[in-house]
Amino acid sequence: MNGRQTAAQPGSDGSAYHLKTPSYNARLTEVGRGTPMGELLRRYWHPVGMAADATATPRIVKVLDEELILFRDGAGRAGLVYPRCCHRGTTLYYGKVEDRGIRCCYHGWLFDVEGRCLEQPCEPDGGRQRDRVRQPWYPVQEGYGLVFAYMGPPERRPVLPRYECLEVLEAGEFVEADDSSIGSGGIQVAPCNWLQHFENVVDPYHVPILHGSFSGAQFVEQMAAMPKVKFEYGPYGVKATSLRAQPDGRTFRRVTEAVLPTLRVVANPRVGRYGMVESIGWTLPIDDTHYRIYVAGRVRETGELAKMKSRYNGKTWAELTPGEHQKFPGDVEAQTGQGAITFHSEEHLVSSDQGVSMLRILFQKQLDAIAAGRDPVGVAFREEEAYVKLDAGQYLE
Amino acid sequence: MNGRQTAAQPGSDGSAYHLKTPSYNARLTEVGRGTPMGELLRRYWHPVGMAADATATPRIVKVLDEELILFRDGAGRAGLVYPRCCHRGTTLYYGKVEDRGIRCCYHGWLFDVEGRCLEQPCEPDGGRQRDRVRQPWYPVQEGYGLVFAYMGPPERRPVLPRYECLEVLEAGEFVEADDSSIGSGGIQVAPCNWLQHFENVVDPYHVPILHGSFSGAQFVEQMAAMPKVKFEYGPYGVKATSLRAQPDGRTFRRVTEAVLPTLRVVANPRVGRYGMVESIGWTLPIDDTHYRIYVAGRVRETGELAKMKSRYNGKTWAELTPGEHQKFPGDVEAQTGQGAITFHSEEHLVSSDQGVSMLRILFQKQLDAIAAGRDPVGVAFREEEAYVKLDAGQYLE
Amino acid sequence: MNGRQTAAQPGSDGSAYHLKTPSYNARLTEVGRGTPMGELLRRYWHPVGMAADATATPRIVKVLDEELILFRDGAGRAGLVYPRCCHRGTTLYYGKVEDRGIRCCYHGWLFDVEGRCLEQPCEPDGGRQRDRVRQPWYPVQEGYGLVFAYMGPPERRPVLPRYECLEVLEAGEFVEADDSSIGSGGIQVAPCNWLQHFENVVDPYHVPILHGSFSGAQFVEQMAAMPKVKFEYGPYGVKATSLRAQPDGRTFRRVTEAVLPTLRVVANPRVGRYGMVESIGWTLPIDDTHYRIYVAGRVRETGELAKMKSRYNGKTWAELTPGEHQKFPGDVEAQTGQGAITFHSEEHLVSSDQGVSMLRILFQKQLDAIAAGRDPVGVAFREEEAYVKLDAGQYLE
Repeated sequence: MNGRQTAAQPGSDGSAYHLKTPSYNARLTEVGRGTPMGELLRRYWHPVGMAADATATPRIVKVLDEELILFRDGAGRAGLVYPRCCHRGTTLYYGKVEDRGIRCCYHGWLFDVEGRCLEQPCEPDGGRQRDRVRQPWYPVQEGYGLVFAYMGPPERRPVLPRYECLEVLEAGEFVEADDSSIGSGGIQVAPCNWLQHFENVVDPYHVPILHGSFSGAQFVEQMAAMPKVKFEYGPYGVKATSLRAQPDGRTFRRVTEAVLPTLRVVANPRVGRYGMVESIGWTLPIDDTHYRIYVAGRVRETGELAKMKSRYNGKTWAELTPGEHQKFPGDVEAQTGQGAITFHSEEHLVSSDQGVSMLRILFQKQLDAIAAGRDPVGVAFREEEAYVKLDAGQYLE
Repeated sequence: MNGRQTAAQPGSDGSAYHLKTPSYNARLTEVGRGTPMGELLRRYWHPVGMAADATATPRIVKVLDEELILFRDGAGRAGLVYPRCCHRGTTLYYGKVEDRGIRCCYHGWLFDVEGRCLEQPCEPDGGRQRDRVRQPWYPVQEGYGLVFAYMGPPERRPVLPRYECLEVLEAGEFVEADDSSIGSGGIQVAPCNWLQHFENVVDPYHVPILHGSFSGAQFVEQMAAMPKVKFEYGPYGVKATSLRAQPDGRTFRRVTEAVLPTLRVVANPRVGRYGMVESIGWTLPIDDTHYRIYVAGRVRETGELAKMKSRYNGKTWAELTPGEHQKFPGDVEAQTGQGAITFHSEEHLVSSDQGVSMLRILFQKQLDAIAAGRDPVGVAFREEEAYVKLDAGQYLE
Repeated sequence: MNGRQTAAQPGSDGSAYHLKTPSYNARLTEVGRGTPMGELLRRYWHPVGMAADATATPRIVKVLDEELILFRDGAGRAGLVYPRCCHRGTTLYYGKVEDRGIRCCYHGWLFDVEGRCLEQPCEPDGGRQRDRVRQPWYPVQEGYGLVFAYMGPPERRPVLPRYECLEVLEAGEFVEADDSSIGSGGIQVAPCNWLQHFENVVDPYHVPILHGSFSGAQFVEQMAAMPKVKFEYGPYGVKATSLRAQPDGRTFRRVTEAVLPTLRVVANPRVGRYGMVESIGWTLPIDDTHYRIYVAGRVRETGELAKMKSRYNGKTWAELTPGEHQKFPGDVEAQTGQGAITFHSEEHLVSSDQGVSMLRILFQKQLDAIAAGRDPVGVAFREEEAYVKLDAGQYLE
């Protein structure tokens, strides 16, 4: 025992016996309707599936702690409705999709993509009062190969943004979407809170440790060196600029952005090419303790996005044995290893956690804005304001 | 957007954003001891197993949210006892069944079918004070190939009813019992509240939709037409008379009854023959979120009851793939698809739900009767009053 | 019905309808930090693994409802630390064990076996303020092939006891450890409260019933006869002396001790030899509803301890089918068959349960002692007081 212990946490000799009951910051992490963060997230559009997921076969999706049914009617319109039929509550997962909408299996009520009841076949005249009911629904829009939904207050619905990095295409490029959670470290649905992942976007210091030392050079050698990092607020989020001196005297500059509410704007860690970031990832909170990532990016051939994925000792994440997961941990292990929702009460943030701190402060400000009746950052109500230019990318200078 | 929306639910444009927190009617659905419906159900006899389930090997049964041990002593008496031995709490599932009762494996206490302690072998003289303890038990009676239990207040124990449709046998007929939940749509233990199933009995309008249109003609063509239905209260429950005009000018009349507390009195939907209903199904609440059905019926050959079961696209329910369950939904899907306990707060009952409404009103009246110290309908304390004649059946007229 | 019923429980005719809501004695059973029994147990050392379990691969152990990481650094020191890194909460299960301690995978903080932070590689100069944090830890000591931990208040840490029966070795004997829960009846991690098992140690009357009659002579014929038992308090716990008259006129005397907090001091029930007890079993509460047993014993050949294990109808417990478990119940079935935590409110203790009653009273006294600021029995703070001699063994006299 020595003198250091007087200052150490949590007890006089640091014994775990003195641990306090841990807790997490619910305001920053919980996503249900009516929670502070849940309401903030609901002021933005979120991807709820690939465009190809909306078909004549109803599909269950879970988003922001709400289970919903995604489908596409015979006229090609995507629909996103509350699963329980407003008649007797049977799930529309068993519904039949028709030209005009989705029909419940139990008594045949037919609803259009905006929840209007078009038929009640067991009622006289197909339901004289069918206009008095409406199946709860959310508006959707398609773009970049994804279906986006707006789940917030109708009167606050913003324009679906467009992103320069997905709009300005070079010859031979096209935009591809992916639902395999590229950037998670390998898992499609990660069993932890979305914020644990999203904070990681502005935590470049972990890269040489977790992805350099622990798992071998998981990405490329270039990424394995400890960077010098500058953190800044941008108009949409937090920006981290990592500088690494190269053997040839040049500087490898990598700009990563965490854009509110959940966008990971991260250049390919395999450093395939230099220039503007090639993709955007949306960190979708499924519920308080699960997230997944939808990605859209500029590619030259189909399936190119998936090649960004991490490899561990030469294997994909799914190919690892339990023992190899322990031996070669990556982002999945580090983040789900913080628990379903990490206990913020036990954290000790230090100077290298500046990006994480800044992101939390930015979120707190938006929560305050909403509470005060204002709109959060990055929400636009006119098309011309909804075009987003970002600084993310990687450069050799 | 149009003018209809002002009247529509749940919000001004019907957005799911405005959904209220849903709730269910606990008074009508929950079955535990001490709950309103639990106490109502406990005024009647319920099947707890097939006669052949009561043997020298103790069997766990769960009924009305109580786990119990069913056995048959060496003298042929069926017994139904609380599982935890009144000595130290070890389950009698591991007990040894003997001539006089069941013996706990831990310290050997022996109990008869009425819970009396006959031996305490670790105590001097086999337990001088063994009469001071008693293993909790319930009375059982056997009939129609089933073991019935009475789990209510001892002083209110009614006579076990007899049913005309199971007593009046034609030449060559005998009564057969079945525990595969005929009438559920195919599952033996359904993971939803019993009332969701029981209400379905007086909901003939769903037949041409769910069983006609969605799954093809799941029963027979005759059943696929939309009926004209008349709902009435009878002395024991709710009666639905469905009339369907036949191509030859005759009328197909089908009378279905939901008899309190849980009896489905439904003629064979495959319409094997006309006349008085051939079977009774008891919708047994296992707990608040599971039910199963025991059936007894008049047959001419063993296994005939099981032939009533639904087929989907030519397959039994158990043979369907997940995709086929979605494509060919039946009663299991429609009812479990309402959730573990449906949210009554979200329902919109309409004129074709009259049978459901009447059944709920009838239950409410019985709950009120019990609260007022009266007996519910259909409970008889003299043999001659316990003979039940019903109207159910199907007729070509 | 007869006159006995007026005195019988729980209702006038013993109907299960009159059962009260059951409850358990939380004070005696719950083991979490801050609970009465949890705090009592934390005044003693408990085994948390085999010595061979502490290696360079971090291992999750659960003890007294706390999940911890066991490892052994490059210098051979065993360490037991709180799993969540004090930086950002990532589990040290994914940590890398080095010469000086364990390093978190996320940002590389390095901790020694006493939780001191030795490096913070993402911080300037490896963390100028790293002394301000400390990873929560517990002290461990090794002995008898086991790793023992002390999880109580640091200022109350007692000396790790030594036991005569494991110290006085005859020629050819050595001490072997075992983690397969010898004495449980066959399961390694039993899904019930530890006290259900520990009480069984001073319940010799169950032996001829459960282990004689139900499962055949599960141990040896000698054990199958009903004993005469004398119960006494000793300096460390409760002692049961079972006397069985032998056919040759001699007396088989068997002394079993339940030593606080959790030590089963039970001679081999297969009666391999007479004399002082050959092993000690620690009944380790994993959490409120799971326990396991670590054993250390004097043997002459490796693997000898495991031969003590019960057999059922010639099979090991793990080899039994579900039907055989029902037919040949043993300690696992009798004790887990009391439920996850038995309901003490429903018990009816009788004269043959004297050992159980005495053990509970002894525990209550220790709980009172702790509440009054005193130390419980069997806790020594000087080496010379930490040498424990017991009476347990079996003798032919």
